[in-house]
Amino acid sequence: MLDSVRWKPLCPGQQLPGRLRLIDQTKLPETLTYVELDDAHAVYDAIKRLVVRGAPAIGCAAALGLAAVSQHSSAETPEAFLQDVRHTADYLASSRPTAINLRWALDRCTTALAKKIKTDPQDIDSLKHAVLNEALNILQEDIRLCRNIGLHGIPLFAHQTHIGVLTHCNAGALATADYGTALAPIYMAQEKGLAPHVYADETRPLLQGSRLTAWELQRSGVEVTVICDSMAGLLMRDKKISLILVGADRIAANGDVANKIGTYSLAVLAKYHGVPFYVAAPYSTIDPTLPDGSQIPIEQREPGEIIHGFGRQTAPLNCHVYNPAFDITPHTLITGIVTNRALLAPPFDRAIRRLLARCPVNPPDHAG
Amino acid sequence: MLDSVRWKPLCPGQQLPGRLRLIDQTKLPETLTYVELDDAHAVYDAIKRLVVRGAPAIGCAAALGLAAVSQHSSAETPEAFLQDVRHTADYLASSRPTAINLRWALDRCTTALAKKIKTDPQDIDSLKHAVLNEALNILQEDIRLCRNIGLHGIPLFAHQTHIGVLTHCNAGALATADYGTALAPIYMAQEKGLAPHVYADETRPLLQGSRLTAWELQRSGVEVTVICDSMAGLLMRDKKISLILVGADRIAANGDVANKIGTYSLAVLAKYHGVPFYVAAPYSTIDPTLPDGSQIPIEQREPGEIIHGFGRQTAPLNCHVYNPAFDITPHTLITGIVTNRALLAPPFDRAIRRLLARCPVNPPDHAG
Repeated sequence: MLDSVRWKPLCPGQQLPGRLRLIDQTKLPETLTYVELDDAHAVYDAIKRLVVRGAPAIGCAAALGLAAVSQHSSAETPEAFLQDVRHTADYLASSRPTAINLRWALDRCTTALAKKIKTDPQDIDSLKHAVLNEALNILQEDIRLCRNIGLHGIPLFAHQTHIGVLTHCNAGALATADYGTALAPIYMAQEKGLAPHVYADETRPLLQGSRLTAWELQRSGVEVTVICDSMAGLLMRDKKISLILVGADRIAANGDVANKIGTYSLAVLAKYHGVPFYVAAPYSTIDPTLPDGSQIPIEQREPGEIIHGFGRQTAPLNCHVYNPAFDITPHTLITGIVTNRALLAPPFDRAIRRLLARCPVNPPDHAG
Repeated sequence: MLDSVRWKPLCPGQQLPGRLRLIDQTKLPETLTYVELDDAHAVYDAIKRLVVRGAPAIGCAAALGLAAVSQHSSAETPEAFLQDVRHTADYLASSRPTAINLRWALDRCTTALAKKIKTDPQDIDSLKHAVLNEALNILQEDIRLCRNIGLHGIPLFAHQTHIGVLTHCNAGALATADYGTALAPIYMAQEKGLAPHVYADETRPLLQGSRLTAWELQRSGVEVTVICDSMAGLLMRDKKISLILVGADRIAANGDVANKIGTYSLAVLAKYHGVPFYVAAPYSTIDPTLPDGSQIPIEQREPGEIIHGFGRQTAPLNCHVYNPAFDITPHTLITGIVTNRALLAPPFDRAIRRLLARCPVNPPDHAG
């Protein structure tokens, strides 16, 4: 699978010294470029400039970046080292303040380090390994999580070959450490020889669908066709779409889903045409404190994304622009929710209550 | 109103000598630039390069262009002049072979000239005026037609002020000689002080909505907000849209409508949200030879429009792309059809039969 976020040891047979290695997503789809980082400013900059994006991938990158930076600490006592690491973590967390995953992953590393110091005080070198180990745990958990979403999603294909699957934005390998979320069942179907045909909405304004989803699927040998967002309805009418699979930024207790703008329109079109509409996300995306989607705030992004999309002016400079980043899809339009723990069916409020009772949420990745 | 296509006399008090004057739409929305043309190659090039676009505007430009070129003919007999004019007309018609309006407007001018020569043979100078007069007739008819669409469409506003109107693509002043088709009722509502608030779909892939519709509405003082095509559903859910008004490229005998890709999705979203969905077009857009929309061929356009849309590569270079120029909206999703003769209500097959019985169609502008 695509290695969007990894740890790169510099010497054979040992984890340290090493670097955070990222696919530079700002260079896609033109070129596949890797960057290797072990400097705090460079890691901060990579997260801020969207070299790495997607909530799970950002969390993994921040944790591995923290380990890469901390290996160079000149602290001589465990306390001084902990202070150094916390200082770096605070700095990295400020690169994208609204990404909850970022803060969560960094906190896990500093908490693990503090615990290690308290219970088993050791030399600084071992503590540097402790930070890295926690970061590698986060990475491994994300890889497992993606695979489990794939496993719970594969029944949607019902052993059928060559079916048309529509997706929106990028909830794939580039947004995570492995198979992705919405794309995980697709990759798994491909591995099983079902050869799905994916239609990727280009996803205006930032074009994550055409720039990233089409690129990563094509690279993995999955048949993919790029469409403009406005073409999805025609494809459904022409019966080219058997299944819609999208990601989620947040899921309320009743199953309402916040996801990239345009998801709601797709769900309405799917209902009209009788096409099953599935959401795939880590179970930690469920926020049981929100009774429904009406309380999820919708971020308004800057007009420049629409007026000056990709280096060319495409609207009057001073015109009004409406540019919400997300929309809310009501649970009534959703056929099922694929998580890493289970495939949830309606009524979602009950299915979610049961799932959370079995495995309570720790507060990781409630963020896009 | 905006003067996208006009005749520009060079001397006061007389129509000839003169030139075809166009707004260069390839320069919008950055700058408002006029070009003046009286050379066959330059007129051909302007139509081919989309300096002028929109079926009615192309027809007017071709006719006035023919007059501008023909004034320089050195023919000394009426027959030689007619041959010259026909030769120029054939050349101009080949600039966009599928634009039926283009051929129709040029044929009207050559036929008028041939008739003049037959019934009232005169000096060459008078014949040059005859070509120009027919071209000016076409221009005047289009101006009248736009105003009449506006008059028949104004009842949709039901005297309400500040209502939200969604439109798609550009069926405005830039696509015609005057008020436009879909935008004509909006301009008229603005003149009556109703101050509509227009939401303009940017209309991927060619962005006629953000580049042209937003520009011309803003310039006329109409409040306009640009959105990405994927945002229309959210606006309807939030009850920001009272009315949808779009143009048409062709209308079948049962009221099925071919229009810019994305129109069908809008119509489905409108039905789901209970928003009235209107089509505005010259009555000549109705093609009584087509029983329904299934027989309208859907032009597939080249992948580059999606892969290289903004001057930057935004999808993998060799990826599959689905890029239909139009879609068909079934009559069952349409609330009403505004023409220059009447506002048609369902059942459209009967309304259209009655309209055509009153005023049979001559075959002008069945083209996008």
